[in-house]
Amino acid sequence: MRVGDVAYRTLWVAPDGRSVEIIDQTRLPFEFVVETLESLEDAARAIRNMQVRGAPLIGVTAAYGLCLALAHDPSDAALTRARELLLATRPTAVNLRFALDAMVEAVGGVRPPDRLEVAYARAAALADEDVALCRAIGEHGVSLIEEIHARRGEPVNLLTHCNAGWLATIDWGTALAPIYLAHERGIPVHVWVDETRPRNQGASLTAWELGEHGVPHTVVADNAGGHLMQRGRVDLCITGTDRTTATGDVCNKIGTYLKALAARDNGVPFWVALPYSTIDWRVEDGREIPIEERGPEELSVVTGRTGDGRVEKVSILPPKSAVANPAFDVTPARLVTGLVTERGLCEASREGLAGLYPDRVDAASSRTR
Amino acid sequence: MRVGDVAYRTLWVAPDGRSVEIIDQTRLPFEFVVETLESLEDAARAIRNMQVRGAPLIGVTAAYGLCLALAHDPSDAALTRARELLLATRPTAVNLRFALDAMVEAVGGVRPPDRLEVAYARAAALADEDVALCRAIGEHGVSLIEEIHARRGEPVNLLTHCNAGWLATIDWGTALAPIYLAHERGIPVHVWVDETRPRNQGASLTAWELGEHGVPHTVVADNAGGHLMQRGRVDLCITGTDRTTATGDVCNKIGTYLKALAARDNGVPFWVALPYSTIDWRVEDGREIPIEERGPEELSVVTGRTGDGRVEKVSILPPKSAVANPAFDVTPARLVTGLVTERGLCEASREGLAGLYPDRVDAASSRTR
Repeated sequence: MRVGDVAYRTLWVAPDGRSVEIIDQTRLPFEFVVETLESLEDAARAIRNMQVRGAPLIGVTAAYGLCLALAHDPSDAALTRARELLLATRPTAVNLRFALDAMVEAVGGVRPPDRLEVAYARAAALADEDVALCRAIGEHGVSLIEEIHARRGEPVNLLTHCNAGWLATIDWGTALAPIYLAHERGIPVHVWVDETRPRNQGASLTAWELGEHGVPHTVVADNAGGHLMQRGRVDLCITGTDRTTATGDVCNKIGTYLKALAARDNGVPFWVALPYSTIDWRVEDGREIPIEERGPEELSVVTGRTGDGRVEKVSILPPKSAVANPAFDVTPARLVTGLVTERGLCEASREGLAGLYPDRVDAASSRTR
Repeated sequence: MRVGDVAYRTLWVAPDGRSVEIIDQTRLPFEFVVETLESLEDAARAIRNMQVRGAPLIGVTAAYGLCLALAHDPSDAALTRARELLLATRPTAVNLRFALDAMVEAVGGVRPPDRLEVAYARAAALADEDVALCRAIGEHGVSLIEEIHARRGEPVNLLTHCNAGWLATIDWGTALAPIYLAHERGIPVHVWVDETRPRNQGASLTAWELGEHGVPHTVVADNAGGHLMQRGRVDLCITGTDRTTATGDVCNKIGTYLKALAARDNGVPFWVALPYSTIDWRVEDGREIPIEERGPEELSVVTGRTGDGRVEKVSILPPKSAVANPAFDVTPARLVTGLVTERGLCEASREGLAGLYPDRVDAASSRTR
């Protein structure tokens, strides 16, 4: 998508053909900074510190992290160690495991001297696959927006939570892909962007990327979405997901569940966009998904720009107060109108997912047998 | 309640017997600053800028604002002008109108030269009445906490949104009054404090006042409450209200509705604490209540303390992004387990309220006849 007049991806191999360049998302929306990853440790740190974030982008970054590890040491031991290190960076997103498994499968049977080339090719394929998946999600999801616009004849008001835009993927995004496609096709859209405390991914990433690409949007506090829905100002909610169960429960950024409750209470459709790699076929019940508890400083310290242009961190809490910071919640399938995948739309249910992915649900059940 | 070792009210008449001192709540939790109001304009500005906030405290501040106006000019014209100016400071809270009506009723029939003394006496009575009301709310509400503690034998986990503590009133608070009383009676309590974006009243006021008084608490993002309820970590939600309809709909800080939805979805009791002055007997349907739209800078600019101790404002949004900032939402009575008032507990319904307030509901219906 566009930053100013330039089209970008979120991650690319540097001109040296070895190191990897990323957009440092912790610097947005204040500074647009490209950072170079030279080593496994660089990649792990970029994921852990959320310089890259979003389930699909985490997966591809981890894949390249494995490449960087193999560049240093192509042995089996190094491969195993790199996989473990990267897997431990973030506990919730299933794409991370998926991408690492794909990489290990690609290079595991290859002689160590030949691994590097295979690894970079597989990582590049994962990146390109992600772009194609997101574009396909957009193609399927845009029908929902077109339908509302055809019926109402007015700009379509969408609400999204956190950032499931192109910054969360390699390009296009998941939840925002249908919105970008609608915008490109001339369907008037307006996006309510949840601020998404405590890390403000909506305020700093979604608002930024929509603005750079020219999509009309308004930032609101996370608290406001219910009221907007009560007043009929939201036509469609659409979010991404970090992990989706085989039964359609959706684990996504903390607060998603509250918006799904409000959507149901007000008859607003609540859709979740995802590529197949987000589905964890081994999990039946969303309540089984481990919820990452992140550090208190994400809530207690806010980064912003001062009046004279410096980027500064400020503490907003009384020093004596404790903080809890669960990063995700689980929206039960009963609150989800449907899922938008690269294969099409489906109900958020075992039957819905199995209908779109008969191949994968079979593979999963044979693995557990 | 206590600040350090000193007991405070939120507002008191200065030693000169004329001007009024307030705690400047916009400076909390970073600085404890007492500000002196010398004129009607000072009082109106303090309300408008939210140096004082919370429906009961707004009402009493407006009452003293009328006193300050009369000190300058006790004429009928000045009285009318002062009432209009103060009434326009905040559109949502009904206590404001209630307090001003009480003041006008007290001084209207009095000769201008005698008005000042009557006005200060009436304002003092309103302040003392508020303390007594809040204390009574606490006495009735503490039974809910005692019951949970008796049943479970563990610390009782409460969740509150925004600030309905002593800082929102003259003392004790509404939603926090039962919690302060439970704490004083040795019932172990722990309060989940919603940050309450965009103005952060939870993070900066509720956390501060609980901490100063020694009540265990944990600040969470507004997004976290649903997840905490899903995990069984909330025994009771309790909030205040800025306006309650005759049918039990509750207009309170934006985001309250989302917590009420989550409470219902998880079988968590959701109580709302209020003095009678918050009930607007003329409104039947919460959707009729005007919702104040506040300025974008409340969301886009965050105040905090820098590493070297300065209090600084930082902008957190991309400059091109629009902002919407509705300040309140309406929680329909069907989502409210019950109301805690100075007269006791009741169902959030016309029948529940009429049962506790037969005198007032009759007066209201005779006025509209």
